[in-house]
Amino acid sequence: MTPKTLAFDVFGTLVDWRTSIAREAAPVLGRLGRSDIDPHTFADGWRARYQPAMARVRDGDRCFVILDVLHREMLEDLLTSLDIGPDALGEDGLADLTRAWHRLDPWPDAVAGLTRLKTRFPIVTLSNGNIALMLDMARRAGLPWDAILGAEVSGHYKPDPEAYLATARVLAIAPDELCLVAAHHSDLAAARHCGLLTAHVDRPLEYGGRPAPDRHFASDWEWSVGSLIELADTLGA
Amino acid sequence: MTPKTLAFDVFGTLVDWRTSIAREAAPVLGRLGRSDIDPHTFADGWRARYQPAMARVRDGDRCFVILDVLHREMLEDLLTSLDIGPDALGEDGLADLTRAWHRLDPWPDAVAGLTRLKTRFPIVTLSNGNIALMLDMARRAGLPWDAILGAEVSGHYKPDPEAYLATARVLAIAPDELCLVAAHHSDLAAARHCGLLTAHVDRPLEYGGRPAPDRHFASDWEWSVGSLIELADTLGA
Repeated sequence: MTPKTLAFDVFGTLVDWRTSIAREAAPVLGRLGRSDIDPHTFADGWRARYQPAMARVRDGDRCFVILDVLHREMLEDLLTSLDIGPDALGEDGLADLTRAWHRLDPWPDAVAGLTRLKTRFPIVTLSNGNIALMLDMARRAGLPWDAILGAEVSGHYKPDPEAYLATARVLAIAPDELCLVAAHHSDLAAARHCGLLTAHVDRPLEYGGRPAPDRHFASDWEWSVGSLIELADTLGA
Repeated sequence: MTPKTLAFDVFGTLVDWRTSIAREAAPVLGRLGRSDIDPHTFADGWRARYQPAMARVRDGDRCFVILDVLHREMLEDLLTSLDIGPDALGEDGLADLTRAWHRLDPWPDAVAGLTRLKTRFPIVTLSNGNIALMLDMARRAGLPWDAILGAEVSGHYKPDPEAYLATARVLAIAPDELCLVAAHHSDLAAARHCGLLTAHVDRPLEYGGRPAPDRHFASDWEWSVGSLIELADTLGA
């Protein structure tokens, strides 16, 4: 039961979106005179719009659009909910804050763990992020991908089966030769449903210490680790 | 006139397909009792079927299929033309020889040149090769891609404009912010037609020293160099 290739979820699994978005949002909120808004709460509010936005694509209510587009729409909706007119940021300000998702910081073990795992396995993204986002993030954070796959390559958002199956197909391997590494039990459950191997990496701080919304999907994954270093140890990389 | 991102043609520009395919074909031809066939001529015959095979996709005579599929069909056609029944190799033999295109050796300057260029620019593939092929080749040869793009991401084979334009689009940059680096004047001409910047790298040995079939497309490219090391020097990387 050794995978041929490791595919990684990215947001939350490899990078700390909550702390990073809060870091980016804080000065913007300050300039808007809205320092009353906790930037971590702002990050949570932005991320809370993630699943509903993708659901409209998954449900066929709209055609596939890349995550950068959804992030922008989610941001404008969040600002409106906070009584901030999106125009207050200007086009450049909205575009730049949207690109904050390209500038997320990795968890402390991510780069070292991926670098070790890459010595034994091809490592690819299986993320809902678009290619430009993943590329910018990888160069800034030092994530040493062999290939950037996922939503934009498959044209489908996880947990649509096609997101997992198309990734195996472009790699020219069977689903059970591909292992998804993710911090999210719901993602792993969907991957297992498609026949993939599954590895859970615990990220207790993803939601600032609060319980994950998908914890009821927890299961007996093939591997369960506390870091990518532990995964490298376990897989002999 | 500094590009934001460098996109590379691969076959012939970064890897020496002719010598590598000859190396792979020689023992196969030997086992078939056909050492009378020069393995370099065999490589030339395989590659000669490349443009006609893609033309059927470009012309809409068939749906897009990945290059691994075309390489297999081209191989069977080549073998038949040499009075070798494809069955003589068996399914495993045909599949393995087709994957010889995943095992091409880089030109001597390719890895060092890409590594230097990557310090200043994102480096991506803009190749007609499929993702699995590019991934296997990159891991074996040490080509340090930021992202693998090209035909399978765009669904179009070069020199279709969409192959170039879709690559810029997924990178979220304008065509004139993307520079194609290629050994082939025809590829560069098509890229320029789409508004890309162009850099020619001379590979006089690609066809064993014979003139390139597309030399009549030669033009005043933005950059013309003898190696990727020279390109890195020129672009300040």
